[in-house]
Amino acid sequence: MIIHVDLDSVAADFEAGFLRRLREKHPDLPYIPLEDRTTFKLREQYVPKFGAHFREIIKEIETEPGFFRSLPPIPGSIEAIREIARKHLVYFCSAPLKETQHSAAEKYDWVEEQFGGIEWRKQLILTFDKTLIRGHILIDDKPEITGAVVSPYWEQVLVDWPYNRHVTDKRRINYDWSNWKEVLPELL
Amino acid sequence: MIIHVDLDSVAADFEAGFLRRLREKHPDLPYIPLEDRTTFKLREQYVPKFGAHFREIIKEIETEPGFFRSLPPIPGSIEAIREIARKHLVYFCSAPLKETQHSAAEKYDWVEEQFGGIEWRKQLILTFDKTLIRGHILIDDKPEITGAVVSPYWEQVLVDWPYNRHVTDKRRINYDWSNWKEVLPELL
Repeated sequence: MIIHVDLDSVAADFEAGFLRRLREKHPDLPYIPLEDRTTFKLREQYVPKFGAHFREIIKEIETEPGFFRSLPPIPGSIEAIREIARKHLVYFCSAPLKETQHSAAEKYDWVEEQFGGIEWRKQLILTFDKTLIRGHILIDDKPEITGAVVSPYWEQVLVDWPYNRHVTDKRRINYDWSNWKEVLPELL
Repeated sequence: MIIHVDLDSVAADFEAGFLRRLREKHPDLPYIPLEDRTTFKLREQYVPKFGAHFREIIKEIETEPGFFRSLPPIPGSIEAIREIARKHLVYFCSAPLKETQHSAAEKYDWVEEQFGGIEWRKQLILTFDKTLIRGHILIDDKPEITGAVVSPYWEQVLVDWPYNRHVTDKRRINYDWSNWKEVLPELL
C-alpha cells in the first residue's frame, strides 16, 4: 500500500516547536497551552485571543531560518513510520510555507536527520494540494483537506489534536501514535 | 483539465544554463553543444566522452547556490504555459536535486520570478515520483517516467530534445513550444 504521512503536527511537532520558540523569544507574552489549541492555524486562535500583533510574532517565528529543521519529532511517530515503511511505501506529503524559502529546504533536512539517511529525502512530496496525490491512506491532522480533486484516492486518517475533534467521520490515531496498530490493522 | 509541467528542460533551460556556467567557469575545458546532447543526464554523456573528472565538475555547477534560480526560461514556454493556465489547472511538477538544499527552495523562487507572482509558488509540486501525481497531461522531457504507480493517470507529452528522440509512441512538442496548439488541440 501507498501511505502518505503529513509532517507538521503528525511527525514533526510544529505546535510544541512554536510554543518553545515563542516562550524563548517572548517570555513576557501570554501563550496558549497545547491542550487548549483549538484552531488549525495558530493565528486563528492567537490573534482573536491576544491581539493583532500576534500575527507578526507568529510569522517571525515560522519564517526564522532553522525553525522547521529544529522541530522535535512527535513522540512515537518516527518508530511507527519506520515500522509501517518496512511493509509499505511511505511518503511524506507536506505543504511548505508559501512566504519563505527556508521551510521547503528544511523539510528535506528534517526527514533526513530524523530518519537517519539521505535516501529518506526522496520520500518527501511537497504540494499545496494533497488531493492530487495518489495513495491509499493520508495520515494528516488537518480537519478538512480540499483541492482540485473532489474525490481523492486516499482515505484520510486523523492524528488527534484539539482542533480536529469536531470531525467524527474519520479514523483517528493518538497524538503519540500509541494506538496506530489498532486503528490501522491493515498495515500490519 | 489538470496539466502538469516539468521545470528542467521544459520551462527552465537547464541545459543552456549548465553550458553557460561550464564555459564561464572552465573556458579551457571541452563541452558538448546542445544539439549533440544525447543522454538525459549530463554525466552519462560528459563522463564517457571527456573523463571521470567531469562528474565533479557537473555536480559543482548543479549544486552552486543560485544555479537553479538563474536558469533562463525556455523561449516560448512561459507564454504557452500562461495561455494554457487561463483555461486549465496548471501545476509545475518537478524533482529537486537529492544532494542539495538549494534546488528545492530555488525552484519556488524561479516559478515566482518567471511568472511574476507569489501565487504561482502554490502551483509547484516537488516529488521524486511523478507517477503518484494525478492529472490529465504531464509535459516532460524525460524519455521514460517510472515509479510506484505502474499506470499513471496522465498522458506524458514530450518536449523535444536529442536525448528523447528514440521515443516514438508519445506526442511531442518542439523545444520552443512553437507547435503546442497543433499537438495539444484539446487545451484550446
